[in-house]
Amino acid sequence: MSPSWEDIGPKAQARLLDSIPSEWRVPDDKLPPSSQLDVTSFPAKSGLLSDHELAITDALASDIVAQIASGTWKAVDVTAAFCKRAAIAHQLTKCLTVIMFDDAIARAKELDRQFAETGKTVGPLHGLPISLKDNFNIIGKTSCVGFTAWAEEPMQVESTIVGMLRDLGAVAYVKTNVPTAMMIAESVNNTFGRTVNPLNRNLTSGGSSGGESALIAMHGSPLGIGTDIGGSLRIPSAMTGIWTIRPSYGRFPHFDARSGMGGQEAVGSVHGPMARSVKDLRLFCEHVSNAGPWLKDPKCIEMPWRSVTLPEKLKIAVMWDDGIVTPTPPVKRALKEVVEKLKGKGYEIVEWGPEGHQKALELIAKFFVADGGKSVGKILEVTGEPWRPEMKYYEDAKEIGVYDLWQLQKERTALSKMYLDRWAASGGVDAILLPTTPYASVKHGDFKYIGYTGVYNVLDYSAVSFPTGLFADEKVDVSPKDHKALSEFDEAANKDYDAAAVHGIPISLQLVGRRLQEEKMLDLAERVAKDLD
Amino acid sequence: MSPSWEDIGPKAQARLLDSIPSEWRVPDDKLPPSSQLDVTSFPAKSGLLSDHELAITDALASDIVAQIASGTWKAVDVTAAFCKRAAIAHQLTKCLTVIMFDDAIARAKELDRQFAETGKTVGPLHGLPISLKDNFNIIGKTSCVGFTAWAEEPMQVESTIVGMLRDLGAVAYVKTNVPTAMMIAESVNNTFGRTVNPLNRNLTSGGSSGGESALIAMHGSPLGIGTDIGGSLRIPSAMTGIWTIRPSYGRFPHFDARSGMGGQEAVGSVHGPMARSVKDLRLFCEHVSNAGPWLKDPKCIEMPWRSVTLPEKLKIAVMWDDGIVTPTPPVKRALKEVVEKLKGKGYEIVEWGPEGHQKALELIAKFFVADGGKSVGKILEVTGEPWRPEMKYYEDAKEIGVYDLWQLQKERTALSKMYLDRWAASGGVDAILLPTTPYASVKHGDFKYIGYTGVYNVLDYSAVSFPTGLFADEKVDVSPKDHKALSEFDEAANKDYDAAAVHGIPISLQLVGRRLQEEKMLDLAERVAKDLD
Repeated sequence: MSPSWEDIGPKAQARLLDSIPSEWRVPDDKLPPSSQLDVTSFPAKSGLLSDHELAITDALASDIVAQIASGTWKAVDVTAAFCKRAAIAHQLTKCLTVIMFDDAIARAKELDRQFAETGKTVGPLHGLPISLKDNFNIIGKTSCVGFTAWAEEPMQVESTIVGMLRDLGAVAYVKTNVPTAMMIAESVNNTFGRTVNPLNRNLTSGGSSGGESALIAMHGSPLGIGTDIGGSLRIPSAMTGIWTIRPSYGRFPHFDARSGMGGQEAVGSVHGPMARSVKDLRLFCEHVSNAGPWLKDPKCIEMPWRSVTLPEKLKIAVMWDDGIVTPTPPVKRALKEVVEKLKGKGYEIVEWGPEGHQKALELIAKFFVADGGKSVGKILEVTGEPWRPEMKYYEDAKEIGVYDLWQLQKERTALSKMYLDRWAASGGVDAILLPTTPYASVKHGDFKYIGYTGVYNVLDYSAVSFPTGLFADEKVDVSPKDHKALSEFDEAANKDYDAAAVHGIPISLQLVGRRLQEEKMLDLAERVAKDLD
Repeated sequence: MSPSWEDIGPKAQARLLDSIPSEWRVPDDKLPPSSQLDVTSFPAKSGLLSDHELAITDALASDIVAQIASGTWKAVDVTAAFCKRAAIAHQLTKCLTVIMFDDAIARAKELDRQFAETGKTVGPLHGLPISLKDNFNIIGKTSCVGFTAWAEEPMQVESTIVGMLRDLGAVAYVKTNVPTAMMIAESVNNTFGRTVNPLNRNLTSGGSSGGESALIAMHGSPLGIGTDIGGSLRIPSAMTGIWTIRPSYGRFPHFDARSGMGGQEAVGSVHGPMARSVKDLRLFCEHVSNAGPWLKDPKCIEMPWRSVTLPEKLKIAVMWDDGIVTPTPPVKRALKEVVEKLKGKGYEIVEWGPEGHQKALELIAKFFVADGGKSVGKILEVTGEPWRPEMKYYEDAKEIGVYDLWQLQKERTALSKMYLDRWAASGGVDAILLPTTPYASVKHGDFKYIGYTGVYNVLDYSAVSFPTGLFADEKVDVSPKDHKALSEFDEAANKDYDAAAVHGIPISLQLVGRRLQEEKMLDLAERVAKDLD
């Protein structure tokens, strides 16, 4: 008899916890009390990590590879340190789904051996531990994507990016939690439960790459790979104050990454890096691009990493709101402060209206459920797992025929053309600056609006989400007394907003460039961040 | 009362003929007799073109722009010469659908005026007449795509490529015939009838860009723009012995080109140049790419024309047949002779099997009718136009739901990966050499198999069709006595093959490169052609 779906989750969670070596398990009485919301300082205080391990895990990815390449640090020490810190992070936030510490340490030792023997690194990411979102396949490991049906199925294939990262010298050591089918903006599912935000455990770390964001914010990973089909890289990065880039489709290999909606191509899912600095994003982008992903993934574009020269004076178009949801007070304030600061630094700032945004969101919503939720439903059926309440829209969806899909695709092409023409008519706008989400973060269950990110999935634009260096402040970010809701979503965002709950959370914004402008957007975001500093 | 669909066609044809100035009309008694099959020599003998006009129209596109740019030729003379020769070509082959001679001559005069005034060309295609397949929109002109419903509807929008070509200095002067919905491999429809092959009017000029191929083979256009979704550039080019490249999707702007299956994106329709030489293809590709189509068409990739260096020794993989249809005797012989010659020139020749081809063809066939033929059916319904017999497959198709489309798309991704891996494992194959079609040409109605081209639409590879310099010869290209049919298609191809009917027809082959290797494929095809010379 096959196990009930309800039994699968607890078993999977117990198995996962058991795969953490006992010496890295935090006894219950040593765990921070549930009343302690910010747990980011726990690893340093836990006594489980040596000073050297703390130094390693607090370093940036690009510094780590330099330290290993110079022979200063050993890959095995770096890997062990991150394994340990990831284990702690998981015990505090439930961010992991797969633990591969033994494999990772064996691999790191082998890398050290090769380095000692040849004096050379095997590649530019030699010895760098990289965490992977749950849907990247590793042979022999599960990719359950939240589904109880897939919780015990070891994968027979490897995702293209996994092999490429190995060839570049990186070390895979953990996979991270996601929501069911990766189609919820918080990371919650019936197998591994809910990942929480380490900055405030009452809040979400976002989704769908929310295991990654929690882990990276805990310094349990120096560089993580997430995916984005409606905001799934940017939303969790924004919730936890880290950096990401949502690249255009075809820039990085996505082949054989698992999906709950396989074959859906109207909105292309992409993967991208998540890290604590822009230079770490570039480390990933540059080396993966230059390794020729188009020779391995048929959907990748033959486009090595290009060098770009930013204009001396940048022209930034600011979109204050999308006409559908007003950013909550901290985000609104951050956008204002950033704009003022950039003006002061000589940036040319113009306004950008939300023309086309409503249409883009209608389209993305229709594309996602064009199969009537069948793809997800069929996976749930296997174990009789019920639909999560967050996915009611999928549960209720009606499948459309291909003729109707073609009509939607026509509308999308027209929309894309209109947006591109707007950009061309803008007189040389370098980027659009707008909120990544209306929220600094939200309490669990309150993430309801992905409009600020999803538009750029429909358009396939390159978009960086970056921490502004500003933080939500309950004293200044008070709810407006006379809020006029622009929509039902807006009403909910305003109602759910709780200044005290998000106090202290870092505020992120989004910088958006046209399609395939990844190089420019990283350079541009780096300059903006420097100028805000 | 709206006119019956049966009345629309003859009216449209008469209107078109009437738009040819009377002095360029060939009186019935001066037309070659219907028994004269090859009419390519008629323009020179007609007395309608001066020696200068014959010299102009026999010149290559790249030479024409050079002659105009040096001030030797006037744009107006060039345009007038091509208008005249196109008018003659149409009267012999029914290759046109829209005639814009007055507009073209006015435009050419204006270009001459600007050149005289500034001493400069307006762009690299200054004064070059370019013919356009019927589905490229020009404001105020029809784009009927064979449908009687659209035969009298002037377009309100312009295709992106039309404006770009104008900006580059080119002169639009005619649009050319296609089959209904551009989904038949011969150019026949109920509005403009059937285009015939000027090399032998009993044979097809191919489709769907078969108005273009007939016109270019008649030297009625130096450079034409066609489209390709299953072979529609390569098939007509092969039938008439001219050059073309099927570029990968996103290389050239396809925005606002009309389609009978709007919104269908599983197999991307692309446009490309057709001409009498490879350097004329490059003229188009280079200048259009470098004009930044990605700033105007949201589906275009930011990829200016790149310079490539071919390896000294080329490695060519030859595919003798696709396992489904044996090439007819002339094509088989041409492939053999070409391979022998290239071996003699020091090329490394390896074999390429048809793994995946059957699957690719099953997929393309399903993608094309995934809407159950609704898109085409709805246009036919407007005038009550019946389905053409060649489109019975569309008429009989049943629409599938989006879930099933997603499954097909998954299969395609797997197929594309398999093919790419084969290429990667080939040890540096530079191109695949194979037939463009199994036929040199065929009698009207006998074009039944698009497999050799369609596979590369599914894979989105770059593919050049080029004339080998060899011709079908009824004495040597005799039907095999013991043909063992590989399939129903093969049986038909063998049964329909008529050595006498195709005698003297030029034989083309196809050189295929990976996705987005347009630069390499033009250089490579140029070298191959030179080495065959």
